[in-house]
Amino acid sequence: MGSKAAVIGYGVVGSGTVELFEKNKAKIEKNIGREVTLAYILDLKDFPDSPYADRMIKDFNIILNDPEVEVVAEVVGGTTFAYNYTKALLEAGKSVVTSNKELVAKKGAELLKIAKEHGCNYLFEASVGGGIPIIRPIYKCLAGNTIEEITGILNGTTNFILTKMIREQLSFDEALRQAQANGYAEADPTADIEGIDACRKICILGSLAYGRHIDPDRIHCSGISRITMADVEYADVAGYVIKLIGSVRQTQDGKVSAMVCPRLVSKKHLFSHVDDVYNAICVKGDGVGDAVFYGRGAGKLPTASAVVGDIIDALKHRNTNIGVYWEQKDEDFLLPYKDDDAALYVRVKGDGAREMTKGLSATFGNLIFLDRRTAHSEDEVAFITPYIKESELDKSLAIISHSLSIESKIRLL
Amino acid sequence: MGSKAAVIGYGVVGSGTVELFEKNKAKIEKNIGREVTLAYILDLKDFPDSPYADRMIKDFNIILNDPEVEVVAEVVGGTTFAYNYTKALLEAGKSVVTSNKELVAKKGAELLKIAKEHGCNYLFEASVGGGIPIIRPIYKCLAGNTIEEITGILNGTTNFILTKMIREQLSFDEALRQAQANGYAEADPTADIEGIDACRKICILGSLAYGRHIDPDRIHCSGISRITMADVEYADVAGYVIKLIGSVRQTQDGKVSAMVCPRLVSKKHLFSHVDDVYNAICVKGDGVGDAVFYGRGAGKLPTASAVVGDIIDALKHRNTNIGVYWEQKDEDFLLPYKDDDAALYVRVKGDGAREMTKGLSATFGNLIFLDRRTAHSEDEVAFITPYIKESELDKSLAIISHSLSIESKIRLL
Repeated sequence: MGSKAAVIGYGVVGSGTVELFEKNKAKIEKNIGREVTLAYILDLKDFPDSPYADRMIKDFNIILNDPEVEVVAEVVGGTTFAYNYTKALLEAGKSVVTSNKELVAKKGAELLKIAKEHGCNYLFEASVGGGIPIIRPIYKCLAGNTIEEITGILNGTTNFILTKMIREQLSFDEALRQAQANGYAEADPTADIEGIDACRKICILGSLAYGRHIDPDRIHCSGISRITMADVEYADVAGYVIKLIGSVRQTQDGKVSAMVCPRLVSKKHLFSHVDDVYNAICVKGDGVGDAVFYGRGAGKLPTASAVVGDIIDALKHRNTNIGVYWEQKDEDFLLPYKDDDAALYVRVKGDGAREMTKGLSATFGNLIFLDRRTAHSEDEVAFITPYIKESELDKSLAIISHSLSIESKIRLL
Repeated sequence: MGSKAAVIGYGVVGSGTVELFEKNKAKIEKNIGREVTLAYILDLKDFPDSPYADRMIKDFNIILNDPEVEVVAEVVGGTTFAYNYTKALLEAGKSVVTSNKELVAKKGAELLKIAKEHGCNYLFEASVGGGIPIIRPIYKCLAGNTIEEITGILNGTTNFILTKMIREQLSFDEALRQAQANGYAEADPTADIEGIDACRKICILGSLAYGRHIDPDRIHCSGISRITMADVEYADVAGYVIKLIGSVRQTQDGKVSAMVCPRLVSKKHLFSHVDDVYNAICVKGDGVGDAVFYGRGAGKLPTASAVVGDIIDALKHRNTNIGVYWEQKDEDFLLPYKDDDAALYVRVKGDGAREMTKGLSATFGNLIFLDRRTAHSEDEVAFITPYIKESELDKSLAIISHSLSIESKIRLL
């Protein structure tokens, strides 16, 4: 007997999912070992000219109440309808696969628990890195490892903007406009440029790796809107590029440090070669060492690739929970951002700043002072600190803030 | 009730497997949902001082006849004992996981079929790329794609040697000696430097991607032992590095082109930054586009990471075949190597070679002539051809071979 699948949301990812599934249907059915019909596409809009018009529906209950529907792709986004639909489907024993990082990051623990209790699956390979395989590699291939750290360039929009700033010396505003003109940034780019999207993704990866829900609202998240050409130049001359990095790691006392912020990345680091809209994620395990995953982190067909892969896996695990989950616990296991050691790049401004290097070293310890290629100013100094807690750095910065203003403070990777 | 696992072969990978499994045992058992004992370690040698001496056995039948053993890691290598053991275990319904690329490349189709028929699994994540997740990502995460091409730096030893030649201008022989001194190359390095190891790996990836057994003995395989400093230099000045590349792709008429050979890789290509013993594999799918997987392609714990991941997956799929297989067919679906189009780098030598550029262009078409940084010789010319079948190039080379000798011929990636 054949099986039915459904798609909720016929936007960019939804239409890509239908397209890719239909294109490779023969191969997919051979893999699963039975016929699969993509029977329903739920969307509130009308698509009279679509070749799939006959499968378009507006009533969610048709999917919910069809006993032959085994798996549903939730690609509608958001956390209201998507949450209600997903919960109802899982409670009915139907697997749900999704690209909805917001929902997975916020409600993953609860939805994975429901899936487990009802012998079905909630799969979310598409929620991080678009089509790049990363979720399943972590919980399957690297299951024998203790994951020490995950770092990643997780957002294509910001990486495109930074690449333009680094390679073509565009200002942030100009680079953002180019990203919007290319369709890489939305009219309201806040979620991308302020790091919110990357934050959801690193929380998903961290929750998966450490088995405990990491709330996106409770970790440090800063974006790239305040990165200036001055910072890009100082970094360049010193042998670094600036990238927006999500990171999560377990500390020696069992706490978890998670954050999203811009970082200075050495030009010798593989991440420095990850340009434009590409993503890269490095997983460090006690067995594997560093494993890096690279590719297009967004887009119609790449994301659809992950959604369809999950549809196939769900259909191959009929009535069997795969056993992916993390727990929602109240205990506070997160290390405060400012208590995590890092070397920091600092840029300060003020009258005669360049003459104060000795005084700055006396305040901050052994500093590396940086040169700028152009526009040498007597009023500006940039330096890199030794490893230090940012909370301690801030105390020192307060001492000099009466004479110098702190323009930038960026962690090194 | 708990389960038992066993390891066959207590060499580098075997001891790493035991070490990593025991280190992360609590996490692994939580994941699987029951207790797992690594009950037996089979090796013909004695290890009286090992902390696992009490589990060492010499009689394979103890493993075969213990009904509680559910999964066995075959990390003994070779194709005689390993084949017999694997076959017997699978026929007894016990899953086998392995790092044995030679056996998987040669007998994968047969062993996967036996596993399927007996409701167990033959898993081989460790056979390609060491600990880098690549096998499962292809058959799971990218299952919704038609795989268009897979290319990879699949052998760490040769990549280390080439990196030394490129970065430190060492000769091949000097670089090989350094690789041996570092433990990256064996006393008899043939399988690595002649591309045999990479050939097995690309055959495994191709068999998996295209569902048909690709015999390592039937595809083109050339190594790096004939790469000279002259080639490295010409490539460098032209913006390329030389890498040993395994590649497999499906042609438009349904044939498969598979080969291992050195290639000129543009310095703009991500692979040009893959240095030392690192591996990288690029999978191109019609949905995902390019997905790249990078990490340490060999070594004790990285390879053990993949073996232990497979042990866990096998234990989670008790009595259930996962459905990975390829077919052994007699029909010839392989495109002959020399019929596959490529741009080629060619270096020729002979009296007055540099004065013959016009004549060479008349023979080969529109050539790009290359400069060398040092040791300019009037008797040597190097150039890059347009896209051409190598069989046609060879015809043209035959015409000039009376006056010029062909020193090198390397495909571009």
